Amino acid sequence: MSVLVVGSVALDTVETPFGTVKDVLGGSATYFSLAASTFTKVSLVAVVGTDFPSRYVRLLESAGVDLTGLQVRDGETFRWSGRYDFDLNLAHTISTELNVFSSFHPVLPESYRDCELVFLGNIDPELQQEVLRQATGARLTIMDTMNFWIEGKREELTNTMSSVDVIMMNEAEAREYAGTYNLLQAARKILALGPRILVVKKGEYGCVMFSDSSYFVAPAYPLENVKDPTGAGDSFAGGFAGYLAYARDFSLPSMRKAIVYGSVIASFAVEDFSVGRLVSLSSEEITARYREFQEFTYFEHLAR
Amino acid sequence: MSVLVVGSVALDTVETPFGTVKDVLGGSATYFSLAASTFTKVSLVAVVGTDFPSRYVRLLESAGVDLTGLQVRDGETFRWSGRYDFDLNLAHTISTELNVFSSFHPVLPESYRDCELVFLGNIDPELQQEVLRQATGARLTIMDTMNFWIEGKREELTNTMSSVDVIMMNEAEAREYAGTYNLLQAARKILALGPRILVVKKGEYGCVMFSDSSYFVAPAYPLENVKDPTGAGDSFAGGFAGYLAYARDFSLPSMRKAIVYGSVIASFAVEDFSVGRLVSLSSEEITARYREFQEFTYFEHLAR
Repeated sequence: MSVLVVGSVALDTVETPFGTVKDVLGGSATYFSLAASTFTKVSLVAVVGTDFPSRYVRLLESAGVDLTGLQVRDGETFRWSGRYDFDLNLAHTISTELNVFSSFHPVLPESYRDCELVFLGNIDPELQQEVLRQATGARLTIMDTMNFWIEGKREELTNTMSSVDVIMMNEAEAREYAGTYNLLQAARKILALGPRILVVKKGEYGCVMFSDSSYFVAPAYPLENVKDPTGAGDSFAGGFAGYLAYARDFSLPSMRKAIVYGSVIASFAVEDFSVGRLVSLSSEEITARYREFQEFTYFEHLAR
Repeated sequence: MSVLVVGSVALDTVETPFGTVKDVLGGSATYFSLAASTFTKVSLVAVVGTDFPSRYVRLLESAGVDLTGLQVRDGETFRWSGRYDFDLNLAHTISTELNVFSSFHPVLPESYRDCELVFLGNIDPELQQEVLRQATGARLTIMDTMNFWIEGKREELTNTMSSVDVIMMNEAEAREYAGTYNLLQAARKILALGPRILVVKKGEYGCVMFSDSSYFVAPAYPLENVKDPTGAGDSFAGGFAGYLAYARDFSLPSMRKAIVYGSVIASFAVEDFSVGRLVSLSSEEITARYREFQEFTYFEHLAR
């Protein structure tokens, strides 16, 4: 099963205590695609300007990402610039230049429309709904969002949240959306909108997956050498969705495995700037780190 | 096997968004004792003033806490007053009155000296060493500390840290002591001092247990109704040490179970003000919550 992703493809300038990179490949759809492509075929919908380097097009293509849906428009590519201090959990945005992204409307090529698994990156919730209307073959829809839309387009966001199967949010976003500090209460409010699953991402503290009947708590992989946290959340989502598509199994046990695979892929993504680590990732490395997760979370269970 | 604890017995005044209590039973040795006593016999060393209510003495005694080592001195009992906002992770200290605690020197009654498991609450590291010199039968020594000693008595603290088997610290304290933001690097520095185990507590994000050869990551129990986080860390330590003493097994697998039991006991402790929930806790409730931990951390392992 292949995965369809709609989001941003960007040129990032990033400063961390470990170095600086300028105009490197970034964006939610990019990280998601390269992460998911470690498991399955990915179909991308996004927009870039005529300045978008052809070597980045080739990089995505050689990872098996279908770029039929990548629009190229007159103008400059979306640019994001940010800085991380030693607390790598927190990105300080220096500048955001939407450029060609400001007039973007996602169009699904005919060949994408029967995609069964659809991921909506953290774009305008009205655009997310445009995608849902076109993705007529979708069996599992997953969305991400961000504080910008919670504050600026709450009603439209709520509409999208009510229409998808899986919602991913950061911890602070879930609290902000639900208007309560307590995460269990926030989760209950959000699940009441209709989605089957809520995944709350907590950065270096891992994540929690809520469903009506249960929850699953997963730590993040403890890392010694984080170079650049940019794209960690989208890489997590890509590993999650990529595994589900590969397994063709949307049951709760399969979702739990997908959470661990997402954590594994995200843990690799932050070990290098931009997508450096994602493009060199082997399935042996992924399996080895999944086994490490097994080892460091294991404790003896009580006899029944 | 019984557990020996040295620490504070206090009268706490606590304000949270859910209520206020005044001069209620608190202190590190108190929370630890009541938590550990759910598993085994506890011998307590601490000091109180002549104002210490006799009903609190009876409360501790009826939980099976041996108070032979509780000194009663002329003057007032140690008092702590604090406030929590909606972010219940962070205590805001309003006042600390050491009172009789300021001249405290721990003295182990003869009957305590063959105690095999010793817990040093977060008191002055010089006092912690006085205890270690007297606890001649100790087979496993566990210590807690706090930022106050890291900043004010670093050398003495380092001496104690080099002399014990298990160190417990908050995440911020481990980072501060080691002078590095990265937790794996901090753990390596601290383990190099000599202890077998470092347990880093992360509040609502659970904890990590480091040893030379491995680590274990445990989430905290997700709670909907936290009333008062005071004593959570000491209750965790009490559950941890209590289980180890009960199991008479200090192996790493046993320590992992102890971490989960510690998390379970701490999750109960914060559900009510002061020690209200600890004193009413049944072993059936503890077992049931341990099983919940199993359930919400379980994911399918890869075949070998």
